[in-house]
Amino acid sequence: MNAMFSRHEIVRFGWCDFAGIMFFPRYFELANDTVEAWFGEALGITYRQLHGDLGWSVPTVRFDADFKAPSRMDDRLTIDLVVEQLGGASCTLKIAAHADGQLRFFGRQVIVLTDRATLRPRPWPDDLRARIAPFIEEPA
Amino acid sequence: MNAMFSRHEIVRFGWCDFAGIMFFPRYFELANDTVEAWFGEALGITYRQLHGDLGWSVPTVRFDADFKAPSRMDDRLTIDLVVEQLGGASCTLKIAAHADGQLRFFGRQVIVLTDRATLRPRPWPDDLRARIAPFIEEPA
Amino acid sequence: MNAMFSRHEIVRFGWCDFAGIMFFPRYFELANDTVEAWFGEALGITYRQLHGDLGWSVPTVRFDADFKAPSRMDDRLTIDLVVEQLGGASCTLKIAAHADGQLRFFGRQVIVLTDRATLRPRPWPDDLRARIAPFIEEPA
Amino acid sequence: MNAMFSRHEIVRFGWCDFAGIMFFPRYFELANDTVEAWFGEALGITYRQLHGDLGWSVPTVRFDADFKAPSRMDDRLTIDLVVEQLGGASCTLKIAAHADGQLRFFGRQVIVLTDRATLRPRPWPDDLRARIAPFIEEPA
Repeated sequence: MNAMFSRHEIVRFGWCDFAGIMFFPRYFELANDTVEAWFGEALGITYRQLHGDLGWSVPTVRFDADFKAPSRMDDRLTIDLVVEQLGGASCTLKIAAHADGQLRFFGRQVIVLTDRATLRPRPWPDDLRARIAPFIEEPA
Repeated sequence: MNAMFSRHEIVRFGWCDFAGIMFFPRYFELANDTVEAWFGEALGITYRQLHGDLGWSVPTVRFDADFKAPSRMDDRLTIDLVVEQLGGASCTLKIAAHADGQLRFFGRQVIVLTDRATLRPRPWPDDLRARIAPFIEEPA
Repeated sequence: MNAMFSRHEIVRFGWCDFAGIMFFPRYFELANDTVEAWFGEALGITYRQLHGDLGWSVPTVRFDADFKAPSRMDDRLTIDLVVEQLGGASCTLKIAAHADGQLRFFGRQVIVLTDRATLRPRPWPDDLRARIAPFIEEPA
Repeated sequence: MNAMFSRHEIVRFGWCDFAGIMFFPRYFELANDTVEAWFGEALGITYRQLHGDLGWSVPTVRFDADFKAPSRMDDRLTIDLVVEQLGGASCTLKIAAHADGQLRFFGRQVIVLTDRATLRPRPWPDDLRARIAPFIEEPA
């Protein structure tokens, strides 16, 4: 059984748009915040260490997203992350946001480990691969 | 030959992230601003009219995006919009952002015309269909 | 001794600007999120209730802010709120953000209770005044 | 007679909050974008040059703001900048936003020229002082 990384956020007043629901680009910010929290809290490497000391970066190269139902102010979103596929330098994440038992957002985010200076991909180091492994989704 | 709707934006200081490139969720805001400008400037119906007087909304239900190359502060982005497919109540838009002759972002955004009160889809009215038609991409 | 309302936020990757520090407008978003959390968690009225059921709003009419020291990615900010002055329809809040024992931001935010429909100020109801009272700063 | 730097922005759908008016932190982003455009277009030094080649930064150390009237979706804001005071390393800017002949926002933003590496203030160079001078407000 694979591990899942989860966090929670309350939908805030300023995140809603003129139509009174959460402005959809906010989901991508929440997704990215979740990846960042996963690195720091589950993989044992904060973004400050990753970008600073190590001189790496993890840019997003692809994001496919479905907005399943609107989220409203004061909703408590649960944002879940699992790994669909771990490539040589890439990692495909499945990000889902729920509230009140209803799926609101589902997306696949592809990040790539790169050197900050050259922006060239670089292979995931073995120790990081090992810490990512438990989050890889098992085949159904 | 189909029409294309275009606008320009300078990448601002505050849009860049810790890695010094434009934070990827900003592309979705720029895409949505472009759809909004297209309605107001090309289709003859501002978002204020659409959401206010008419009581409609055009939520995004799907967005697939590729981030092809990083954008940097002071880059002048050209954002182009064409219609890939016009459904009964939906509309699939192709949004591309270029700078310095390089493709930076390409996405497909699916919007749906809805009633604000019920959030139910409603068919595009004929006059709006007619104004959207010139932007429908011709088969290659 | 007066009560203080506090919450915490981690400075995220996407909140930083090209200069690598938290983009200063983010402090105003964090301040407003704090006011919103204070209403929901300490005053017993969520923003959904306030704006929805009650038909009120609490727009900000003034904000004076000092940025004392830069905040960086992964910093854990503590954001504190006390009430400096409770007027008939207005409320002056003192908002301070610290990290690592250092003051980063200090601001005075003035909000006004209004009717959403008319945007006219309306007096704080007695029960709400009573719940705000413990947060009023005592004279030094 | 002093010069004034001006630019325009349309209030977008996603900039509005649950109350249907422009979310007030957006004014600070617009103010900062205006300072950035003033440097690039009027003072002859883009933020890329300033932060990159020159290794400087212009952090905001103070911002006092009054929100005079709400701005709504599709409003065309005119944002004006003049210099109230040019110090040794600091510069106090007056930023005003109008729409439909009505003052919406008025603020004083204090920026400081600093070295990016040390974050220490550094004096405005003579050529930059000379280019700022025409924007200094004359005594009434």
